[in-house]
Amino acid sequence: MNMVRGALRANQEVSRDQILRLFSVSSGEAKKHREMALSYLRTFLKRPQVTASSGLEMVSRQIDAASNGNRQVAFSAYLKFLGENIIPQSSNMASPRCIGHMTSVVPGFVWTLGDLIVGLNQNLVKREASRALTVLERKTLSMLHQAIYGRGEEFYDAQAQSNSSTLGIMTSGATISNLAALWIARNLSLGSLEDFAGIEAEGVGAALAHYGSQQAVIICSSFAHYSIRKAAGILGLGERNVISTPVDRRGRVDLAALQRNVDDCRHRGFRLLAIVATAGTTDCGSIDPLDEVGEIAAVAGTHFHVDAAWGAPLLFSRRYRRKLAGIQRADSVTIDAHKQFYLPIGNSVLLMRHPQASSVIEKQTSYMLQEGSGDLGNRSLEGSRPGSALLLHAALNIIGPRGYGWLIEDNIRKAKVMSRKLRERGLFELVVPPETNIVLYRYIPPGTRKKRQNGALNASDNLFINQLNERIQKTQSDAGRAFVSRTTVENLPGGCSIVALRAVLANPFTTEADIDFVIQDQIEIAEQLLRSRSTVEASTRVGNAN
Amino acid sequence: MNMVRGALRANQEVSRDQILRLFSVSSGEAKKHREMALSYLRTFLKRPQVTASSGLEMVSRQIDAASNGNRQVAFSAYLKFLGENIIPQSSNMASPRCIGHMTSVVPGFVWTLGDLIVGLNQNLVKREASRALTVLERKTLSMLHQAIYGRGEEFYDAQAQSNSSTLGIMTSGATISNLAALWIARNLSLGSLEDFAGIEAEGVGAALAHYGSQQAVIICSSFAHYSIRKAAGILGLGERNVISTPVDRRGRVDLAALQRNVDDCRHRGFRLLAIVATAGTTDCGSIDPLDEVGEIAAVAGTHFHVDAAWGAPLLFSRRYRRKLAGIQRADSVTIDAHKQFYLPIGNSVLLMRHPQASSVIEKQTSYMLQEGSGDLGNRSLEGSRPGSALLLHAALNIIGPRGYGWLIEDNIRKAKVMSRKLRERGLFELVVPPETNIVLYRYIPPGTRKKRQNGALNASDNLFINQLNERIQKTQSDAGRAFVSRTTVENLPGGCSIVALRAVLANPFTTEADIDFVIQDQIEIAEQLLRSRSTVEASTRVGNAN
Repeated sequence: MNMVRGALRANQEVSRDQILRLFSVSSGEAKKHREMALSYLRTFLKRPQVTASSGLEMVSRQIDAASNGNRQVAFSAYLKFLGENIIPQSSNMASPRCIGHMTSVVPGFVWTLGDLIVGLNQNLVKREASRALTVLERKTLSMLHQAIYGRGEEFYDAQAQSNSSTLGIMTSGATISNLAALWIARNLSLGSLEDFAGIEAEGVGAALAHYGSQQAVIICSSFAHYSIRKAAGILGLGERNVISTPVDRRGRVDLAALQRNVDDCRHRGFRLLAIVATAGTTDCGSIDPLDEVGEIAAVAGTHFHVDAAWGAPLLFSRRYRRKLAGIQRADSVTIDAHKQFYLPIGNSVLLMRHPQASSVIEKQTSYMLQEGSGDLGNRSLEGSRPGSALLLHAALNIIGPRGYGWLIEDNIRKAKVMSRKLRERGLFELVVPPETNIVLYRYIPPGTRKKRQNGALNASDNLFINQLNERIQKTQSDAGRAFVSRTTVENLPGGCSIVALRAVLANPFTTEADIDFVIQDQIEIAEQLLRSRSTVEASTRVGNAN
Repeated sequence: MNMVRGALRANQEVSRDQILRLFSVSSGEAKKHREMALSYLRTFLKRPQVTASSGLEMVSRQIDAASNGNRQVAFSAYLKFLGENIIPQSSNMASPRCIGHMTSVVPGFVWTLGDLIVGLNQNLVKREASRALTVLERKTLSMLHQAIYGRGEEFYDAQAQSNSSTLGIMTSGATISNLAALWIARNLSLGSLEDFAGIEAEGVGAALAHYGSQQAVIICSSFAHYSIRKAAGILGLGERNVISTPVDRRGRVDLAALQRNVDDCRHRGFRLLAIVATAGTTDCGSIDPLDEVGEIAAVAGTHFHVDAAWGAPLLFSRRYRRKLAGIQRADSVTIDAHKQFYLPIGNSVLLMRHPQASSVIEKQTSYMLQEGSGDLGNRSLEGSRPGSALLLHAALNIIGPRGYGWLIEDNIRKAKVMSRKLRERGLFELVVPPETNIVLYRYIPPGTRKKRQNGALNASDNLFINQLNERIQKTQSDAGRAFVSRTTVENLPGGCSIVALRAVLANPFTTEADIDFVIQDQIEIAEQLLRSRSTVEASTRVGNAN
């Protein structure tokens, strides 16, 4: 399959017409191809089945077979390959019984806007390659900035389109948003002085020496997303310098413990670069008390970052908005557009309270960024970027704050329904009472139910329950009829390590009947697993007896 | 325009049907909307005009007007807004007279595949959210790996789909690819030891102290992309610790100077984390002598990274492949799929020679990455990522190595044609003789042509020529009939700072007539500028005389 050597050996006669036809924007065939692709896609997405229960091991060979040596493959043949081999072996994120991921179905208008983004192929790194979309992206960021910070019209009139202001940065995902936030926090804390060029120029070692600190640290809760620790590794601070704070029984940072960590840093002469709170933890959707954490950060005089990748759209719900009280104290906020804004993977936002804060990461280069141009690329972690702001702007207008408010409330309602159903069955335990729309629970096998009710489960019981739940999730996922995810929760107060099933109620098409289906499927799987275990044990005993 | 407060005040009655209709995959209206969007797009892309010559200052107000207060906007109305206000005010990257960006037109099949990627919404961070696409991405990476490294079939059979192997990482752009490469290089060089947990855990300061170095440095040429310096800043090494090496008259790293920099690092006890060579510089498309730089890196025992974001597809040309000789010595290679692979912005690749090298950036987390799962997210800088590998896999099959070979050769042919035309006119100077398909040149006004021919331009002549070329580029860009970019070259041997016009010949539809048009337009603009300057000077003299 050596494609290069093959291609170089082969007669390189490729016709100009053949190539130009591939790039043509109005070929008569294009429409036929599009209908063909969309037909495969719709057929797949409409099935309630989440994944095919077999066949993935064949995919690699099918991919090889689809390559026609070193000759070009016709697009229609390629589409047929996708339709027959790749699409049916994907995960159906649109299935209402696929309730384990933080991404689900995307609104239909996104498909069409995706065509526009790809066809226009604007590059947001610089104005001259993205003219109107630069204006639109700045506008979109100011809409979200206002949703968080609620500044007045004069503020946005002055800042939104100003070349010297940066209300936010669009990125490809929350890992990059969090990394950019902590990059900014690091540079703000260890910046340039009269006799020092700053950490960005001089590096971590020189900066700590200059500022007279042994260590620079970040504090967050034990339920913070792993990208915080990863960012500390990338930024040269060291993952060990992320100080993890315990959570309470509902998965929210323990404020007294947080204060102790802050005090401890001061006593030990550590430089506290940032305190990170999470508004919607990945494990269980819990929300740290933002106002209180913001107060602690303010008193400590440090950067306050809120990772609201999951929870930000609660702002749009009249009922649940209060859960984010204090978010306006944040110096920076991460929001994932591809989570509860229902946009496709690859879209995230970092907002900055102060329009000038990100000047500490500003870069200039002769060939790309003209000084004072307002090019979005000069205060951003990424370089070339697509015009995805169009998706978010469209969604904020078409779904709108009211639509998002409805979705959030409907999702939380479903999480309550599911929790109630789980409790009523008497077969499950809620590991963390759900604060938003993530339900963390586990199946409790008959032999241990009494002990659990009396709070008398011991380590060996837990080990058994963990193994069972791991197998329930895996068996259900492999069968493909439904999907919840699984996580291991290590850090609950007084708790041991708990393997939990994790349902994320975010698909607007998920009904109570779907929830019943998922639960019933798990019960049947659990009973089956327990039966076959007894059989194995019995046969082992028989075997031993022989 | 306070959208949240407005939404919260308003009666939140949003109907369930209204929301579900937005998410429906088969609404009868969807087809109509798609045709409407594509019709706007095609009309725009077919015009030779690059940008509208006016109107951008209106866009911000038009965006505000398009928002319907806090009520949802219908998609058809939103599309009309895009079609009338945003699309016409974009940059027409598909225009054959838009020859200044490194991105141009995308093949038509990409639009359709974009629908599939968005509609499937797979998340490549973990297998369970991307089943077949994880297999396809691994396959795509192995195809490119083989194009660079040419390992045998057994190697790819064993490594391509192996959970413990990482032949490459797909990213959103070359800035992230280069950052990931240097992150890996940093961690490989300052890794864990028996009594030290490694730089990722302990940070830069502790690592340097442990390894007994004052500084950790990266060496590249003065023409390397600015993302190398940016990466050093982000990684906590400090931008000043990127050692810049001069280039020769053709923009390639000066090997003797490179060797001196390496020796100097050794003498001063610096830890050399990586040597970076560029295969296709952003300024002028020049290619460092990879074999020789690779040899210097090998002798120095350091990581050898090749930034081939621009130049990688030369591999597919029988004629020009030799320019990349030695690339197989690289420990890591950056390739932009959105440059000369003609895919939309947001697609890049980092390849690793050793399938285990990126284990030094491996992360595990309880809720996402099951150990030994082969999830692509555990050795990557980004977290959630879309299934864009589908685009690259399709392109490698549909355009194919032979198609890319043809494109590269056709592009370089056009760059030669343009260079010849510029020389023949006698009005321009080639700033760097083009090595690939980027032409760097400047207009020389009549009064200085003789002096230039005799190599007698002084600083004041150059300043005048620089200002003139800056205005030529800006005037042409503002008028919108054609587009070349502009750069300031600082680092040519013996040279002063030179403002150059920069033509990137990459659009397959660009003809000789288009090239003539661009050049003639520039000549007319230059003559106009010089005339109005004489008039201003004359009128100033008259004014002074009065």
